[in-house]
Amino acid sequence: MSDEPRRKLLAEKTPFPDGLDERLRAQLTFLVEVDRLKTVLRQSPLAAADRRENDAEHSWHLAMMVGVLAEHSDRPVDVGHTVQLVLVHDLVEIYAGDTPLYDSAAGADQEEREAAAADELFGLLPDDQARRMRALWDEFEERRTPEARFAKAMDRLQPLLLNWMARGGTWRTPGVTADDVRARKAVIGDASGSLWEAGRRLIDEGEQRGWARTSPGE
Amino acid sequence: MSDEPRRKLLAEKTPFPDGLDERLRAQLTFLVEVDRLKTVLRQSPLAAADRRENDAEHSWHLAMMVGVLAEHSDRPVDVGHTVQLVLVHDLVEIYAGDTPLYDSAAGADQEEREAAAADELFGLLPDDQARRMRALWDEFEERRTPEARFAKAMDRLQPLLLNWMARGGTWRTPGVTADDVRARKAVIGDASGSLWEAGRRLIDEGEQRGWARTSPGE
Repeated sequence: MSDEPRRKLLAEKTPFPDGLDERLRAQLTFLVEVDRLKTVLRQSPLAAADRRENDAEHSWHLAMMVGVLAEHSDRPVDVGHTVQLVLVHDLVEIYAGDTPLYDSAAGADQEEREAAAADELFGLLPDDQARRMRALWDEFEERRTPEARFAKAMDRLQPLLLNWMARGGTWRTPGVTADDVRARKAVIGDASGSLWEAGRRLIDEGEQRGWARTSPGE
Repeated sequence: MSDEPRRKLLAEKTPFPDGLDERLRAQLTFLVEVDRLKTVLRQSPLAAADRRENDAEHSWHLAMMVGVLAEHSDRPVDVGHTVQLVLVHDLVEIYAGDTPLYDSAAGADQEEREAAAADELFGLLPDDQARRMRALWDEFEERRTPEARFAKAMDRLQPLLLNWMARGGTWRTPGVTADDVRARKAVIGDASGSLWEAGRRLIDEGEQRGWARTSPGE
């Protein structure tokens, strides 16, 4: 990376005045930079307006879902920690971009791009906080704790709800079938049997109504 | 309220299929309804794009700020609880609308409108969760706990950062002076001396650069 020109930070457009404590300056620089998450567009259509959702809105929505739906987790979860996971889970997309769920090609080098983005973005913070943020993101990605599995379930259930509201939404992506949707959403069941049952109910009903395509040969 | 026609819920546009558990159905109805927060526009300009911020993005940003800046609180705060406060603090604006900080007229009946909105919105949830959500919102509004004061400080500091990035932003509202900005932002100091010192530094510097008006007679 050393021969690449350094990315210009948002905070460099209007540099903070002299006299701020260095640690606070690093924190504010990071907090201004993450404003970019509001400009990373997802595929999902909003339920409340005719436009696509952005990552910041999505992350807030997941945090709300954790608070309301945590009781459906098959294993006890620490709600506050799960909220932390969903709040930071998409931050790397600030530099790596959103990878659509039904786009296998873009998924190929996703891991590498996102790891580099994590180094760059979290590296703006003081070291101790950079490590903490990285640990949260790693935990979400590795899905080994009940909290990470529930956070991932919310990340899959939320667009499912939005697609239901849109009577199809990204389920109508060319080449995608209801079976594809079921396969991509099945991780909800790793965290919550009851939520996956409800999610499957929406997909089944969507297929019956023609909002998701039935696989050829069925 | 009983003679007013009931508001149509977002979830009624595409009703959930039969066979969902009633408690889960209420939770999902609420979680779809709060999608509206993404359409409530604030006055603040984004740092990362040339448009105004919405309440959902703003709430997410506050939650990030709590995680990074909590160490600056003058009193110890429970980070997870403070995050819960900022995530729900603007929900009532879904029905009551955003009240601009520098608009005294709109502020007059704000409390009444927001309390009615809270009853209506939180009432979509199962009773125990409605009470919990209402308690969080009341705690934020009353500002009696260290967590509520720190949450409020973030709510004031975040647009201050965005206005700094925009070289004025809403500080340039006609009739508003740098002294007005200082007065509205002083509550940051109720939670954190060091963050209020930094915030005042930005306002002072903004005034010197002509991004905020100096009061007549000074």
